[in-house]
Amino acid sequence: MPELEPLFLRACRGEAIERVPVWFMRQAGRSLPEYRKLRGEGSILEAIRSPELAAEITLQPVDRYGVDAAILFSDIVIPLVGIGIDIDVVPGRGPVIAEPFGTSADLRRLRPLEPEEDVPYVLETVRLLTERLGVPLIGFAGAPFTVASYLVEGGPSRDFVRTKALMHGDPPLWRLLLDRLADLAITSLRAQVDCGAGAIQLFDSWAGALSRADYERHVLPATRRVLEGLADLEVPRIHFGVGTGELLDLMAGAGAEVVGVDWRVPLDRARQRVGPEVVLQGNLDPAICLAGFEVAARETRRVLKEGGGRRHVFNLGHGVLPATDPEVLTRIVELVHRVSAESGADGER
Amino acid sequence: MPELEPLFLRACRGEAIERVPVWFMRQAGRSLPEYRKLRGEGSILEAIRSPELAAEITLQPVDRYGVDAAILFSDIVIPLVGIGIDIDVVPGRGPVIAEPFGTSADLRRLRPLEPEEDVPYVLETVRLLTERLGVPLIGFAGAPFTVASYLVEGGPSRDFVRTKALMHGDPPLWRLLLDRLADLAITSLRAQVDCGAGAIQLFDSWAGALSRADYERHVLPATRRVLEGLADLEVPRIHFGVGTGELLDLMAGAGAEVVGVDWRVPLDRARQRVGPEVVLQGNLDPAICLAGFEVAARETRRVLKEGGGRRHVFNLGHGVLPATDPEVLTRIVELVHRVSAESGADGER
Repeated sequence: MPELEPLFLRACRGEAIERVPVWFMRQAGRSLPEYRKLRGEGSILEAIRSPELAAEITLQPVDRYGVDAAILFSDIVIPLVGIGIDIDVVPGRGPVIAEPFGTSADLRRLRPLEPEEDVPYVLETVRLLTERLGVPLIGFAGAPFTVASYLVEGGPSRDFVRTKALMHGDPPLWRLLLDRLADLAITSLRAQVDCGAGAIQLFDSWAGALSRADYERHVLPATRRVLEGLADLEVPRIHFGVGTGELLDLMAGAGAEVVGVDWRVPLDRARQRVGPEVVLQGNLDPAICLAGFEVAARETRRVLKEGGGRRHVFNLGHGVLPATDPEVLTRIVELVHRVSAESGADGER
Repeated sequence: MPELEPLFLRACRGEAIERVPVWFMRQAGRSLPEYRKLRGEGSILEAIRSPELAAEITLQPVDRYGVDAAILFSDIVIPLVGIGIDIDVVPGRGPVIAEPFGTSADLRRLRPLEPEEDVPYVLETVRLLTERLGVPLIGFAGAPFTVASYLVEGGPSRDFVRTKALMHGDPPLWRLLLDRLADLAITSLRAQVDCGAGAIQLFDSWAGALSRADYERHVLPATRRVLEGLADLEVPRIHFGVGTGELLDLMAGAGAEVVGVDWRVPLDRARQRVGPEVVLQGNLDPAICLAGFEVAARETRRVLKEGGGRRHVFNLGHGVLPATDPEVLTRIVELVHRVSAESGADGER
């Protein structure tokens, strides 16, 4: 008799589930004392380049929380680092690009990624994890728009002024840039899956800064290219962004099985926008976890109720905040599992 | 025969209009060379405390752009400054509070505002402007949540962790805090109207950081108190926030005649959420103005079309960005006036 697939993967495929699976974006990281101890003051890029270290960091929250999936410890700029773009990841700020992208001459710097040559450490980390993990590993990449925004702005941005100016001022160059970044994402994600990742997440974290018209015209085609370029791998694809309430229907049509939703949109409203088939991931407000477990528990129950118990992967609406008490997350995992099992997660029990 | 009310006020009241009025949030400010010349390196709080200077700054964009309304040059923290809270407004960062709000003992510091004693310069600026302006003056205040977020966080915030922790961790104290801030806003706005302001805008700029459940339970009552506390003045009330797509129906029910919408929600979708009566204000993406006039013109036409030509006040979706070319804004004003007049703004021509 074939072994049942892990809960997380079945949930992502929209199959009947005995309870709602849970993992947390940025579950590995500064909120964990064991992470701070392991990392010390070292550079995050150095840690990512060290497979044993990166694998250990990836495993830490799985061991501690009992979550239903692991997510590779890496960064969305790693494929750019791999092809030789000069990037530093500055603590408390984010990626900083030495020479931002500005003209068609800069396209030359965006050569294709050769994973075994350019980012062998990522593949090695995935291989180590595939041996050691008892739950599926989520590989990931940055979506073309979000990666482009770092490249064009030179770092994190509030208003995305340069990015939008390029998008509107030179649409052919913008399209070429996004296509290159789509290829990078596809190549990186395929390699992660080849080495054992059981699902992938495409982070379009800042897509919510765009108007619907801009997203549909200037971003969606490249995102769709990434997701469709992975269809033959038959691993669940998760598509995530923050502040994307107005884009959810478009995102749901881009090809992923799972769409992430931040805490601004109640899941029952999100369901109306994405239709009955798509699986929703989310959407507890990460800041709520800092208000104590009693409050977090009440909000967790609300999220579970709005999620409807099926076609739902429980998560935060964005990453774990560094000041979060890990004990609260442990108890949330336990609560999600217990409540959703009791109420009959698949709605058929 | 009684003189017709100004276009802007008639539009805010939902009356038939011959063209769509336009003004820009933060139309006075660093994007204008005449502003930079006048302000030099001085502190913004000092400029606000100088009625002749503040009036001149308020007038600059009206003279330059031919907009249909002026907005008082001031800051949402001014009532707090007036009652003695130690606040600095740091260029490029925003308000910084020396001693953040944390416990019930801090309530004492939030005494009632006595406008003639505490902020006489604001009243004097409004009086000067009422004499000099040919268009209505919009007075304004910060909404209780947004002002509370600065007080509790000690400055601008990305995640509003402390604010949400207080909101959930001590709801009675949170309610007392918001009620005090509601009283400050009411008193400040009534005084501005008494001195001649023809409309008011309540800035709940960061309300979009909240889940719908949090907004409805912990914020909406105090906001409604402010707006209802001004009802007898019979001036149009505008209620604005960023990223509030999921809150628009609740905001529309809070008492204002006009609801501001950022660029994320197309105005025709916003209309579905707020119902047929409310006037919508917005919603060109401020970043689009930096992509050149041709692009801005196309987007302006889209916004006008989605706005439907009536119950619409044209504006940006948030404030003018400092790097904006004023010439682009001049041409947008001209375009809004011309296109909306040609197409018959009130839908009856």
